[in-house]
Amino acid sequence: MNVLATKPPPAAQMRPETAMRFGLFGSAQAKRGPSIDSAAGFHEFVDYTVESEALGYHSSFIVEHHFTGFGQVSASLNLLTWVAARTTTLRLGTAVLVLPWHNPVLLAEQAATIDLLSGGRLDFGVGRGYRHNEFAGFCIPMEEAEARYEEALEIITRAWTSETPFSHRGRYWNFDNIIVEPPTAQKPHPPFWVGAGSRASIRRCVERGHSLLIDQFCSFEQVEQRLGWFREALTEAGRSFDPMQVAIARAIHVTNDPADKQSALDRRLAGQARTHDLAQTPGGDNKASIMNYDDTREANEAATLFGTPDEIAKKLERLRAMGVRYLLLNGGATTRDNIRRFAAEIMPAFSN
Amino acid sequence: MNVLATKPPPAAQMRPETAMRFGLFGSAQAKRGPSIDSAAGFHEFVDYTVESEALGYHSSFIVEHHFTGFGQVSASLNLLTWVAARTTTLRLGTAVLVLPWHNPVLLAEQAATIDLLSGGRLDFGVGRGYRHNEFAGFCIPMEEAEARYEEALEIITRAWTSETPFSHRGRYWNFDNIIVEPPTAQKPHPPFWVGAGSRASIRRCVERGHSLLIDQFCSFEQVEQRLGWFREALTEAGRSFDPMQVAIARAIHVTNDPADKQSALDRRLAGQARTHDLAQTPGGDNKASIMNYDDTREANEAATLFGTPDEIAKKLERLRAMGVRYLLLNGGATTRDNIRRFAAEIMPAFSN
Repeated sequence: MNVLATKPPPAAQMRPETAMRFGLFGSAQAKRGPSIDSAAGFHEFVDYTVESEALGYHSSFIVEHHFTGFGQVSASLNLLTWVAARTTTLRLGTAVLVLPWHNPVLLAEQAATIDLLSGGRLDFGVGRGYRHNEFAGFCIPMEEAEARYEEALEIITRAWTSETPFSHRGRYWNFDNIIVEPPTAQKPHPPFWVGAGSRASIRRCVERGHSLLIDQFCSFEQVEQRLGWFREALTEAGRSFDPMQVAIARAIHVTNDPADKQSALDRRLAGQARTHDLAQTPGGDNKASIMNYDDTREANEAATLFGTPDEIAKKLERLRAMGVRYLLLNGGATTRDNIRRFAAEIMPAFSN
Repeated sequence: MNVLATKPPPAAQMRPETAMRFGLFGSAQAKRGPSIDSAAGFHEFVDYTVESEALGYHSSFIVEHHFTGFGQVSASLNLLTWVAARTTTLRLGTAVLVLPWHNPVLLAEQAATIDLLSGGRLDFGVGRGYRHNEFAGFCIPMEEAEARYEEALEIITRAWTSETPFSHRGRYWNFDNIIVEPPTAQKPHPPFWVGAGSRASIRRCVERGHSLLIDQFCSFEQVEQRLGWFREALTEAGRSFDPMQVAIARAIHVTNDPADKQSALDRRLAGQARTHDLAQTPGGDNKASIMNYDDTREANEAATLFGTPDEIAKKLERLRAMGVRYLLLNGGATTRDNIRRFAAEIMPAFSN
């Protein structure tokens, strides 16, 4: 990137409208036990992310989860701050911070701190939460998720954009005469990225000028449908479509070995079942869209980027034809081969 | 440091009992305004701290403050995580995290994350808070500070030491069947450092096996008194005194110019008045010990390490004679000269 450029590049150097952008999506894992080095998984993840920047990836989006028992990332902004200090251009994303669990002012301060230190690289992904075990652990009724999310979103936006003290009297939070510091580097504030699946929530996302995250479990058909809803809402609002405002998460496994592909699918199905059990309500009626996908092997194979470089390229062509330009790849920090092979064998044909 | 050494060093190389240790204490500042680079103060602080490690300082303790309007650090653990990623041996301290404002489980997760990533370098300094404007801003009654602090301390300790799920039903917090991740690197947990000034609170600090922070405002006589209470409580408990479990914060300004010393004192008095105004209750009756010092110029001059290297060395001798072995110097990140001159001209005579 030529940071000295003051005029737009000549037409021949401009990225064509079909050029795609690739980032990462995932979690580190801190295992625990008497003879286990719990830090190893975190350091492996950091190294993997630092390497991804050199390989040409645009961003790294990190999950937030609590009380899993298998060590998913809980303090996402802290891990992301460490990654930020080790990188220079990588966008730093959360996918997603679950607003109902956080004091919105403390969260605004934490996010502003990483945005400021990193030179404005934070992509602030937020959501309502969907796992029963997490709401139960925090003793916050899942029924309050929506109202808590809305109130937190309002407070955080205000905290980032108020240059003078303000007060808030709400249902869950009160603040009196506060000025939130430090200021963010990005103005008016870091971009919000919202995980949304329904037409109504995508419409709200557009109304607020937020960007859209599409989760890794939904089918290609659902990706197309959501993109359609996003464009439709933009058209109604009289605004133009920027395809870089929609990021689609996809699991990836690059392999030339059919047996290896099948065992990667096995691992994925097992992992999905594990988190599904944590997330499910005692009554088995968790209504979150992310809980209600076709979880068959066939559906998983269709929705993921598992296979040879050729097979994956064909799927990328399909996504590109729908208007997808920004993918977040979940390749697993323990299998760096995926992001290396993708960068070497697949990315070049799609990023120009 | 010879990390390959497997047996204790020969007697001649051992640090004598009079050897002192020096760390830093302070805050970064993020100014705000239309034409101001708000990140500059944070980056300056990071560079200052990274240099301090090379200069032989042992630790950096960072404050937590909110809603000041002049940009003190609010998200201490996030700034500290960035510092951690840029250093290798420096101990990473908080002085102090104010427990009444935090969800104790989220805080335990954040602190565990930096402890794990940094290879066990976190010194977890905690307190009750003393500034009226902060409690007012969070809409938390200052009268609840003690009870909230006690409950948070209990939950955090339990979160770090429970290898199996636990529940908590308290006055301010409920958690149900949670296992807090990631695990800390230090076992059983990062050391607690407690800001305490009264005999009763120092006794509680000893009972709990916590280390003691002595604030930068109290007089040398008060330092001696608190050290005495700390030793007395240890003796009663039948435990021995480790002088590295008591860290004394002191403001420092190294100068050969008497006029420069006086203007440094002026700046200090002005800064103190500014935070005193934020901290004072509307009725002017804030009882916190840190609010009730002799704030005359003479008392400030006596309590600080302002002056020529010789003058400062004499004060260090006095502290050393009391049994002080660990000082946290507040030299101001904008005047790096202080930590450089101290390291070059004063530290060598006291650290061996």
